[in-house]
Amino acid sequence: MKLVRYGNPGKEKPGLIDAQGVLRDLSAAIKDIGPDQLCDAALTRLAKLNTDNLPAVQGKPRMGCPVQGVRKFIAIGLNYTEHAAELDLPIPKEPIVFMKATSCIQGPDDPVMLPKGSKKTDWEVELGVVIGKRARYVSQKKALDYVAGYCTIHDLSEREFQFELGGTWDKGKGCDTFGPLGPWLVTRDEVPNPQKLGMWLDVNGVRRQTGNTSTMIFSVAKIISYVSQFMTLEPGDVITTGTPPGVGSHMKPNAVFLKKGDVVTLGIEGLGDQRQEVVAFKL
Amino acid sequence: MKLVRYGNPGKEKPGLIDAQGVLRDLSAAIKDIGPDQLCDAALTRLAKLNTDNLPAVQGKPRMGCPVQGVRKFIAIGLNYTEHAAELDLPIPKEPIVFMKATSCIQGPDDPVMLPKGSKKTDWEVELGVVIGKRARYVSQKKALDYVAGYCTIHDLSEREFQFELGGTWDKGKGCDTFGPLGPWLVTRDEVPNPQKLGMWLDVNGVRRQTGNTSTMIFSVAKIISYVSQFMTLEPGDVITTGTPPGVGSHMKPNAVFLKKGDVVTLGIEGLGDQRQEVVAFKL
Repeated sequence: MKLVRYGNPGKEKPGLIDAQGVLRDLSAAIKDIGPDQLCDAALTRLAKLNTDNLPAVQGKPRMGCPVQGVRKFIAIGLNYTEHAAELDLPIPKEPIVFMKATSCIQGPDDPVMLPKGSKKTDWEVELGVVIGKRARYVSQKKALDYVAGYCTIHDLSEREFQFELGGTWDKGKGCDTFGPLGPWLVTRDEVPNPQKLGMWLDVNGVRRQTGNTSTMIFSVAKIISYVSQFMTLEPGDVITTGTPPGVGSHMKPNAVFLKKGDVVTLGIEGLGDQRQEVVAFKL
Repeated sequence: MKLVRYGNPGKEKPGLIDAQGVLRDLSAAIKDIGPDQLCDAALTRLAKLNTDNLPAVQGKPRMGCPVQGVRKFIAIGLNYTEHAAELDLPIPKEPIVFMKATSCIQGPDDPVMLPKGSKKTDWEVELGVVIGKRARYVSQKKALDYVAGYCTIHDLSEREFQFELGGTWDKGKGCDTFGPLGPWLVTRDEVPNPQKLGMWLDVNGVRRQTGNTSTMIFSVAKIISYVSQFMTLEPGDVITTGTPPGVGSHMKPNAVFLKKGDVVTLGIEGLGDQRQEVVAFKL
């Protein structure tokens, strides 16, 4: 299934995209799409619905983040060899784990706002993993059983805040609007191999990132197993799994960063596309 | 007011400790103590209640985390000069910001569990700040207006996970049970100066940390203002503000870490005490 949440910010309704690409309303079947609706039993119940009987939604409503109530937004750094290389950082021996503020999460096509004083806002297309059931010390072999589904994530970063202000990376990763998520939560049954997904990102129509999850250093299963040794993963937690090469901060001959008016488009094979306009800081 | 949540895990009821130290039930007045109950208007309503009319709670129930639904658990590193010195790390020029997994939050007296394979679980008493209203780019001068209240926090850390596995500190800071919080949420009107609070921590009755928030490098107001430049602070977000010297990893002549059976007690002036028994890892 391709689950969505559509409507105005804070008022989103649950829905799904049917086999014909029609958006259909799920409000009569479930209250929302959040931690309580992501377990296998709940998803199986939804999958049994006859989608033809669900009301088709007219028009082109805004898409929200397809998961409500994300509690932890965990991120993996430098998870593609060539991206580590372009940042002049060593290939990690173990997954690099950091966290994005959950307050940065937004819909896939909502504008991205430059933080106040930002000179180095950068793009990163990433495969997102949404946890469906509580995971503690799970084996790599069983790790994917804990996934509710997958989604496209734009892991925006302010490189000065991330690298030049001291401390960990978290200052440059959780700014408002730095976590577009969606459009769809694609349930795991529709993603038989999360390590074989093409991904891309354009800025103003110019291709900047091209990658495939097949070149991850640490697989999704390894990441889930690894992170679950350090913290309990809960339903609705999201892990964003790192970006392929092509970020703006290390473009040659000169770095390129996002500026007001830029349009970023990005997508992952089977998980849907995002489009964001970059807007100036506003209090 | 000293607000509390008491009862079994997941079933806590809201309450308060009255002027005589009696625990009284607030269930009839509010549903819970969480993001929706932390704004000034809601706290003012509570403060007008005649506490003598609230039912006294019999017995000694377990205390839970006094705030339900914490969305972000933000932490400040190396915020006391002597602690930075004992870790052989430079005094930060700007606050070091990292995040603890919200899943590590627990009641003040719940047992602390050693993570699987842990050899270096360490203690840290810290002043906790609970945000009461949305804060974005707030000035240092106005920052304390955004505080709902203060609490005692034990910021447990696994030093090997934190420092020796690569990446940021987050791996060693968010293990299950690593965030005892409470017993009380003391509303800000009762803490006229958060920079003048004595704090202490004992392990098995031996004093290990003695400090005072007056020796913070970055004040609570500075921290709130600073963090609000990088992410929006929301009602119910918690910031833990760093620990004074005396952690186990840098005891002389040899490091001392927590082991099964140890009892940690800690407290902050006016904010209440915690007591945790250290237990072995259990799946």
